[in-house]
Amino acid sequence: MKQIESLWQEVRDLSLGNASAVHRLDSPPAPLEFLRDFVSLNKPCLISRAATAHWPATALWRDRAHLTRALASSSVTVHLTPNGRADSLVPIDDGSSSSASSSPPPLCFASAHAQRVPFAEALDMISRSSQESNFVAYAQQQNDCFRSEYGPLARDCDGHVPWATEALGSLPEAVNLWIGNHFSETSFHKDHYENLYAVVTGEKHFLLLPPTDVHRMYIKDYPAAQYSYIKETGEFKLEVEEPIKYVPWCSVNPYPSPENLESEMAKFPMYFNGPKPFECTVKAGEILYLPSMWFHHVKQNPDDTGLTIAVNYWYDMQFDMKYAYFNFLQSIEYQPIHDYMGTEGEPEDL
Amino acid sequence: MKQIESLWQEVRDLSLGNASAVHRLDSPPAPLEFLRDFVSLNKPCLISRAATAHWPATALWRDRAHLTRALASSSVTVHLTPNGRADSLVPIDDGSSSSASSSPPPLCFASAHAQRVPFAEALDMISRSSQESNFVAYAQQQNDCFRSEYGPLARDCDGHVPWATEALGSLPEAVNLWIGNHFSETSFHKDHYENLYAVVTGEKHFLLLPPTDVHRMYIKDYPAAQYSYIKETGEFKLEVEEPIKYVPWCSVNPYPSPENLESEMAKFPMYFNGPKPFECTVKAGEILYLPSMWFHHVKQNPDDTGLTIAVNYWYDMQFDMKYAYFNFLQSIEYQPIHDYMGTEGEPEDL
Repeated sequence: MKQIESLWQEVRDLSLGNASAVHRLDSPPAPLEFLRDFVSLNKPCLISRAATAHWPATALWRDRAHLTRALASSSVTVHLTPNGRADSLVPIDDGSSSSASSSPPPLCFASAHAQRVPFAEALDMISRSSQESNFVAYAQQQNDCFRSEYGPLARDCDGHVPWATEALGSLPEAVNLWIGNHFSETSFHKDHYENLYAVVTGEKHFLLLPPTDVHRMYIKDYPAAQYSYIKETGEFKLEVEEPIKYVPWCSVNPYPSPENLESEMAKFPMYFNGPKPFECTVKAGEILYLPSMWFHHVKQNPDDTGLTIAVNYWYDMQFDMKYAYFNFLQSIEYQPIHDYMGTEGEPEDL
Repeated sequence: MKQIESLWQEVRDLSLGNASAVHRLDSPPAPLEFLRDFVSLNKPCLISRAATAHWPATALWRDRAHLTRALASSSVTVHLTPNGRADSLVPIDDGSSSSASSSPPPLCFASAHAQRVPFAEALDMISRSSQESNFVAYAQQQNDCFRSEYGPLARDCDGHVPWATEALGSLPEAVNLWIGNHFSETSFHKDHYENLYAVVTGEKHFLLLPPTDVHRMYIKDYPAAQYSYIKETGEFKLEVEEPIKYVPWCSVNPYPSPENLESEMAKFPMYFNGPKPFECTVKAGEILYLPSMWFHHVKQNPDDTGLTIAVNYWYDMQFDMKYAYFNFLQSIEYQPIHDYMGTEGEPEDL
């Protein structure tokens, strides 16, 4: 069904551009401009350092003493995984797939072990996360944690993004704080929010695909599983939830290890052979507008303090004609039988 | 392919509403509100009389003496047809289909006979248009005529719609004047513009379908044809253009005559059995926001002066993700084999 491939291309030709760079603004847009030229087009943009230059956080959050003082009596949630990949696809180690088996073990959708600890302890765990440690800790609670667990930091940055609030007509539905280091990453997924993502220290690297590329993510249902961290032994246990609950998740890992590259490219040709994802590095002081329903994968680099800290503002999205079109597109099953770029693609189960 | 039918319904459930009424505003919207709640959603709205209350035209254009005085030295374009249906589908009378033939004659896309005459003569021709006259005249030139042919009337109304201009970020690409009476109507079609449609005298009745309903319009290619009016005999000649040029046009006439109703419903079940079109009567002083790409059919009623006069402002539309989705949707051929409401619909030629 080559119309789907034409759609991937046309949305780039018409509106998003064919370069993989994200449109950059030198200063925060006026609300009307932001709404007309980005939100309404469902088109990302990156706003320069000017966006958060007035935030005390820019300077203060590079100082751990400031953070631990402000949050001295706070406890916060950290997410622990063996490898920094929370909410990602992991082989189910159910003992049934012997090492002699030729087929790879089935995958599950693994949630991190979440633990609430005093802030200083959380910071210590995040800082100690490394290849050598037996865990990676990431403060990535997404339930409006900035306005609850991190309340004492509120005065250090804006409670909302004024030009976005005016454009979108309401205050953010949730504001989240993220503290991690090099070892934490977030697998491809989409959110049903308009997202203003402000990096305060370090930098975040995003891969972005528009909603029109949904088939390129190979979304499938995976059984939900849960990591438990056993402090005494320093080991993780991964258990599939009972009764089994399926989570639809993107199958593509955009950075396969060199030994897996060939097999991953063969499994996900629409991703690896299709148009390049949009890509952007959000540096300290910059804000990324990440439009609703865009697929995104996130990696990060800390600054010299060893941490990457970010605040993101989730605004309600409009469930409008674009959303209805998206559901229609997604309802069409499509997987090219061979290489999607050829003429061999065929519709399945229409 | 029942996903297409789900799309028709979902866009109504999510955003447009399931009533056939168009959303009504008591006063002109602020630019940001107009952009966020209507343009970005591709959702029509009807703005009350307050929208044009300050226009001198509201009072002045009910007075023919004012119009003929202002345009005393102007000539304007009128469109002549035998029946008031310019730009519509008409049987080709090529002599090949004898009255004994059981199949209906093929249709062509007939353009009106366009003629430039002094304004007073145009007004006289429009006023004389009736069931008894042998022609219907409609001033419906759409090439920015309000700012050219009707220049002397410029001071009687706004040259643009200020809140729309601010929202959309540019002045109108074209402003058109329409003068007709009860006998002129416009067949279903769509425009690649954001349309602000202001009625000054009389009223216009719109049927509206969102772009997601494209399959319900049964768009097909029809050979272009041209009416010529022979003044001496008072007769029209209809000739297919040579070489043949095909025009894609909506096949549905929403108001078939009672004797044709059954056959039209059988030919176009997706239109007649699907969700009701949105419907609205735009009265003198009101403005309809008719979003880009919406299918619309227009009838009109004059006021006691015998005329319906309207000014419409065409603003450039954004060729964005919605437009790419529309092209994708339209590229999927779909015609239910029996009645679309059942489960018998099948994809064709995917």
